[in-house]
Amino acid sequence: MSDVKKVVLAYSGGLDTSVIVKWLQETYNCEVVTFTADIGQGEEVEPARAKAQALGVKEIYIEDLREEFVRDYVFPMFRANTIYEGEYLLGTSIARPLIAKRLIEIANETGADAISHGATGKGNDQVRFELGGYALKPGVKVIAPWREWDLTSREKLMAYCEEHNIPVDFSSKKKKSPYSMDANLLHISYEGGILEDPWAEAEEDMWRWSVSPEQAPDTPTYVELTFEKGDIVAIDGEALKAHEVLERLNKVGGDNGIGRLDIVENRYVGMKSRGCYETPGGTIILRAHRAIESLTLDREEAHLKDQLMPKYAEVIYNGYWWSPERRMLQAAIDETQKNVSGVVRMKLYKGNATVVGRKSEQSLFDESIATFEDDAGAYNQKDAEGFIKLNALRLRIAAGKGRQQS
Amino acid sequence: MSDVKKVVLAYSGGLDTSVIVKWLQETYNCEVVTFTADIGQGEEVEPARAKAQALGVKEIYIEDLREEFVRDYVFPMFRANTIYEGEYLLGTSIARPLIAKRLIEIANETGADAISHGATGKGNDQVRFELGGYALKPGVKVIAPWREWDLTSREKLMAYCEEHNIPVDFSSKKKKSPYSMDANLLHISYEGGILEDPWAEAEEDMWRWSVSPEQAPDTPTYVELTFEKGDIVAIDGEALKAHEVLERLNKVGGDNGIGRLDIVENRYVGMKSRGCYETPGGTIILRAHRAIESLTLDREEAHLKDQLMPKYAEVIYNGYWWSPERRMLQAAIDETQKNVSGVVRMKLYKGNATVVGRKSEQSLFDESIATFEDDAGAYNQKDAEGFIKLNALRLRIAAGKGRQQS
Amino acid sequence: MSDVKKVVLAYSGGLDTSVIVKWLQETYNCEVVTFTADIGQGEEVEPARAKAQALGVKEIYIEDLREEFVRDYVFPMFRANTIYEGEYLLGTSIARPLIAKRLIEIANETGADAISHGATGKGNDQVRFELGGYALKPGVKVIAPWREWDLTSREKLMAYCEEHNIPVDFSSKKKKSPYSMDANLLHISYEGGILEDPWAEAEEDMWRWSVSPEQAPDTPTYVELTFEKGDIVAIDGEALKAHEVLERLNKVGGDNGIGRLDIVENRYVGMKSRGCYETPGGTIILRAHRAIESLTLDREEAHLKDQLMPKYAEVIYNGYWWSPERRMLQAAIDETQKNVSGVVRMKLYKGNATVVGRKSEQSLFDESIATFEDDAGAYNQKDAEGFIKLNALRLRIAAGKGRQQS
Amino acid sequence: MSDVKKVVLAYSGGLDTSVIVKWLQETYNCEVVTFTADIGQGEEVEPARAKAQALGVKEIYIEDLREEFVRDYVFPMFRANTIYEGEYLLGTSIARPLIAKRLIEIANETGADAISHGATGKGNDQVRFELGGYALKPGVKVIAPWREWDLTSREKLMAYCEEHNIPVDFSSKKKKSPYSMDANLLHISYEGGILEDPWAEAEEDMWRWSVSPEQAPDTPTYVELTFEKGDIVAIDGEALKAHEVLERLNKVGGDNGIGRLDIVENRYVGMKSRGCYETPGGTIILRAHRAIESLTLDREEAHLKDQLMPKYAEVIYNGYWWSPERRMLQAAIDETQKNVSGVVRMKLYKGNATVVGRKSEQSLFDESIATFEDDAGAYNQKDAEGFIKLNALRLRIAAGKGRQQS
Repeated sequence: MSDVKKVVLAYSGGLDTSVIVKWLQETYNCEVVTFTADIGQGEEVEPARAKAQALGVKEIYIEDLREEFVRDYVFPMFRANTIYEGEYLLGTSIARPLIAKRLIEIANETGADAISHGATGKGNDQVRFELGGYALKPGVKVIAPWREWDLTSREKLMAYCEEHNIPVDFSSKKKKSPYSMDANLLHISYEGGILEDPWAEAEEDMWRWSVSPEQAPDTPTYVELTFEKGDIVAIDGEALKAHEVLERLNKVGGDNGIGRLDIVENRYVGMKSRGCYETPGGTIILRAHRAIESLTLDREEAHLKDQLMPKYAEVIYNGYWWSPERRMLQAAIDETQKNVSGVVRMKLYKGNATVVGRKSEQSLFDESIATFEDDAGAYNQKDAEGFIKLNALRLRIAAGKGRQQS
Repeated sequence: MSDVKKVVLAYSGGLDTSVIVKWLQETYNCEVVTFTADIGQGEEVEPARAKAQALGVKEIYIEDLREEFVRDYVFPMFRANTIYEGEYLLGTSIARPLIAKRLIEIANETGADAISHGATGKGNDQVRFELGGYALKPGVKVIAPWREWDLTSREKLMAYCEEHNIPVDFSSKKKKSPYSMDANLLHISYEGGILEDPWAEAEEDMWRWSVSPEQAPDTPTYVELTFEKGDIVAIDGEALKAHEVLERLNKVGGDNGIGRLDIVENRYVGMKSRGCYETPGGTIILRAHRAIESLTLDREEAHLKDQLMPKYAEVIYNGYWWSPERRMLQAAIDETQKNVSGVVRMKLYKGNATVVGRKSEQSLFDESIATFEDDAGAYNQKDAEGFIKLNALRLRIAAGKGRQQS
Repeated sequence: MSDVKKVVLAYSGGLDTSVIVKWLQETYNCEVVTFTADIGQGEEVEPARAKAQALGVKEIYIEDLREEFVRDYVFPMFRANTIYEGEYLLGTSIARPLIAKRLIEIANETGADAISHGATGKGNDQVRFELGGYALKPGVKVIAPWREWDLTSREKLMAYCEEHNIPVDFSSKKKKSPYSMDANLLHISYEGGILEDPWAEAEEDMWRWSVSPEQAPDTPTYVELTFEKGDIVAIDGEALKAHEVLERLNKVGGDNGIGRLDIVENRYVGMKSRGCYETPGGTIILRAHRAIESLTLDREEAHLKDQLMPKYAEVIYNGYWWSPERRMLQAAIDETQKNVSGVVRMKLYKGNATVVGRKSEQSLFDESIATFEDDAGAYNQKDAEGFIKLNALRLRIAAGKGRQQS
Repeated sequence: MSDVKKVVLAYSGGLDTSVIVKWLQETYNCEVVTFTADIGQGEEVEPARAKAQALGVKEIYIEDLREEFVRDYVFPMFRANTIYEGEYLLGTSIARPLIAKRLIEIANETGADAISHGATGKGNDQVRFELGGYALKPGVKVIAPWREWDLTSREKLMAYCEEHNIPVDFSSKKKKSPYSMDANLLHISYEGGILEDPWAEAEEDMWRWSVSPEQAPDTPTYVELTFEKGDIVAIDGEALKAHEVLERLNKVGGDNGIGRLDIVENRYVGMKSRGCYETPGGTIILRAHRAIESLTLDREEAHLKDQLMPKYAEVIYNGYWWSPERRMLQAAIDETQKNVSGVVRMKLYKGNATVVGRKSEQSLFDESIATFEDDAGAYNQKDAEGFIKLNALRLRIAAGKGRQQS
């Protein structure tokens, strides 16, 4: 284990990763570089500096990655209307590739030969961190303390803290929650505790980012979202950066009780787990994006996108952002977004994010053809007969030859 | 045109199809058989008898198809979590195959050589009726009056009525609506009128089956839905027939403002159209079915279902229910539903249909493995290392050879 | 019919399209512009000029499109390893988009308002020409004489010639064949005649581009094909233009009895038809391209390509080259070809095109890992245990809960 | 390691698995049950009995599984026209599920708690054996000696033999080959040796099951293959069992130089490997099956099969035969095969397996419609206009609104 000289750790500043700092130093007798990023998790990142220093860390990286996160990861993913298993908006999954990329870049900058993270051996996140790491630096050594050490209970962890003089108030406030949580600009997630019984309803006081629909205002809020090439660039006419869009929508969505989700999902490592999620802004974006696409996408490209989406979601969920198959799918998706521009009007009300209008200069909706009124010859109804006849031909031949018909 | 001897008409009893009866008799000099079905459209079908008789029809079929409709068409479709273009629950599409089948069966019983319907030449329904007809009776003659006649405005239609003594009160009440509507047990749809402008918000008084979320009760309603092999067989413990399930869920869903939808969709004939839909029961079933599947389906079959679903939806939307490709997809879908049994608990509140619990004797959720607590060795975290290493191998080799990494 | 002023006709110089020139002039009282292209069909195109002049045509376009055809249509298609229905290399399909594009461009140059072609109403080619035409010039008028006129037998056609002084030697030599044929640089096709019985073996003297395997040389020929980004750029080290590659491979392939195919295929218009094809060069390219990809593509992008290919083939076969869905798929395919460079060595012998070696500087084949000999730790066999254990986890959980196992 | 009481070993009777018998006895201090199956590998299985007895094995299973193998595994797979990565007929992959199933059944019969096999830690076979084992008996212990022991070179293995009195003539004749080989009724495979250089051409004397095309007879052989529901049931009119079909076709195919393949493939464990295969019978079946399907399958089900096939191939290649996703795909495939009956006539000549005729009472080929001659009104060419117009509508609308056209 002595072959590691320097390791870059994804460091939250919380108790667990503080223990990891010490454990790495001790176990591998190596230098630890900490990397703490603001990706919108809603906690100050600057305090991590003093904590890392207190643990003897000399190279400390603290960065605001919010814009990059939304612009280069969240938005490209939403271009595909990505949902995992029909429900999950991939809030945790999409943050990992960026962290992995920065871990590797910092390893290269600091001459580190290893990276480390605080994810357990049961979950998806270890896979996402490590696949990213290996894809970007094939010879990197990965240290996953939770798979190695024997600090397998809270008691042992606390004992280790005491023994090594790690201040227990490093324990972040959120850790007092009975849930395992993760947050970034796209969502906050909850696992564990009573959620381990899929029949048990989540308790109201678990949720942190949104009011319940019951508590939301009694009057609706309307927003107008302006898209350019598939991404939202303005809200109610005000131009915003990518992360500002998401922050704004999280606020208005959360205020209106939007974006709560309670599911059982299939992890890549082979087990089912129950998770609750709040994704207020993402829930709004998803519906709005579909609405602007409904006007501006050709039917066949829209259908092909829908057929590819589950695969694309799986690729991201499983941790293969930094892979040729993701780039291949992204190329197809992005090719379709050139004309996905326009405005969507939404009504937000007590948990409902409803599309009530959409318009676009790139609209393919042709009122003169679609109308129930006189279309002045724009569409020749007689064409439908030939259309149907030839589409039916294979079915008629089969039936004529006595094939099963129903 | 004189080669048609007898034609079976899908007859609603309304003004338009009453005109068609007369027009067919005149134009083709043939006998007309009327077929009127109760598929849950919410209007009495029996009055169609007197109207048909008044028009000189001798063979009149009036049938209650509600159970068959839900059991053999709606439920099989929901087994696939079917949604067209990410939003539409296919309420109109799924009713057409049954009508087409009965038209052909009645043609065979009565010795008719033709069938007819009241769908226009611009829409999907003509395609669905006719593909079904041709698939089930390849030599059948199809008469689509809207593609043939010159009664292309309401005025001409009224003039025709007057001229032919068709009582104008044949005009059903719903036709006073400015919208083109269609209803069955699964949904009611609205098109035309101000909806032809996709930016215009639908007016509150258009909606007929649901209250608005604003008008819905201030306290939630909980329901427990029991599934067997993918279909709901009981609500709150009470065993129900298929159509009773849907009727019950339409009621409770509509009362809670659930199931409204406002979209622009791509028709099979090549144009975009804007439609509004109310699908209260279907909206509940879709979410509940996904929830019971989340416990009982294997991950890979679930993902494969998700990948096939858009194609299956397209097949149904485009009118190919009676096709080999639909049977092929159905075989795959039904194979997965053997263990999709259990109970889902849902909270219905002001437009929200939220899953709050799910349980099943066929559950694949393994709490002893998924737990954040000590799992007593049920899962060996060290296995994850090899899992990740080999999944990363192709990426590492590529990166090691200098391939693009990001 | 008098609203057409000028029509651009895809003119082969043969009897049928010469009749069409006259028929268009007469029927539509319009000017006809002829367009004749050399796409490698193996016949002189220049003689078409005198024939067109003799028919009174004033604007005559004769063009050599061989390079553009192979570079911009054939090669992009082969990047996807495109095969329709498991067998057909799409030789006819891929030529139509280029013809359609030039028809429209010439219409725009000459101020024509219509285009015309000599394809029948039963086949795929009418669809391909017309979809291309409409996609590139939405208001264009399309005239398809074979769907309109009454010259439905060879006798009537000959009578028309006599009546209108069209020299019968306009009838090209190939028309003496009992088969309907089509040729371009990618292939020559045969339909009709005795082929209409799918049980009948094609006669040896039908085939024109290849010797039979029996007649091919008794010693093999080896060729080395150099790929750059998915396309062949050199043969046996000699740099060649796209069409020269195909010409060269057609020659050496045909000489070795390679590329004959005899199939029943499903036309887009709904019927099955039997066709025989000779595609000597294409058959070689397909296998060689797969071989160079086998070294240079990542597994998952390769598998995704294979899953998308049938759709891509269908898009091209059905005539949707000029569509957003084709561009979307092409974007995905082309994204994967950046590293598809290297050399493939093939053995050609009596109908067999066999890959016997492949090498590439972009190779992902890692001998040090794959070896059966000592790999010096490049691959840790123990990783396989965890890999298998976690991949098996979902299956084990299901079996442990008594699920069907076989 | 002492917790294993009895282990069932897939025993070939060769040197390697004989060493494994001894090593298991020693290392785990457990009883070993041997299982040797004839799946058409071309070697006597009965001699394995004496060898096992000499090693002290008391429970010895020797079975002829040839019919079951072809009937229940090979034929179902060929119904899907299964090919991995465009080339490989999955000869090794498809034999593993049956072996895994018998290992588990014998474990259940003999009260064994473990299974073992002789596959290495680098290949696919370990995965296939073990996934099958875990899927069928979730608590089984799997012992993979090649991943555990230190007998990592031939020298160490030989030393172990000497030390333990394992007669070296247990080494089967085929092991003198420089290649790693595997054989069953579907194919024989070669890996390793000079094949580890993908540029090196395989040597002629490597191939064992087929003559080279050069050495094959100068006159073709014709065979007629009779299909019922997708499987071959007779050759030249003679009814045969499944394995007899394959044996017969291997003979005639091999005699005519058919079925050699030389590829680089992507293993599930993440590396590329080069393999050569002889699959004479399978090569013939694949083409014949496509030919009978070309007459009897509907177009859309055929295309859907083609789209699903790569996934199905991947499932089998990766070892997931005993999985819900395989059963789901099989249900779809088998649904399509009900009418895949008829006769295919093939010409076999010097490496070429060419379809020259096909006929079926279930044929959907309609000569009266497809004909180039007068079709007496069976097909109305005018229908094509409407068909094309409506299929073009979306493209025309887009072009009319100025969208990219080429």
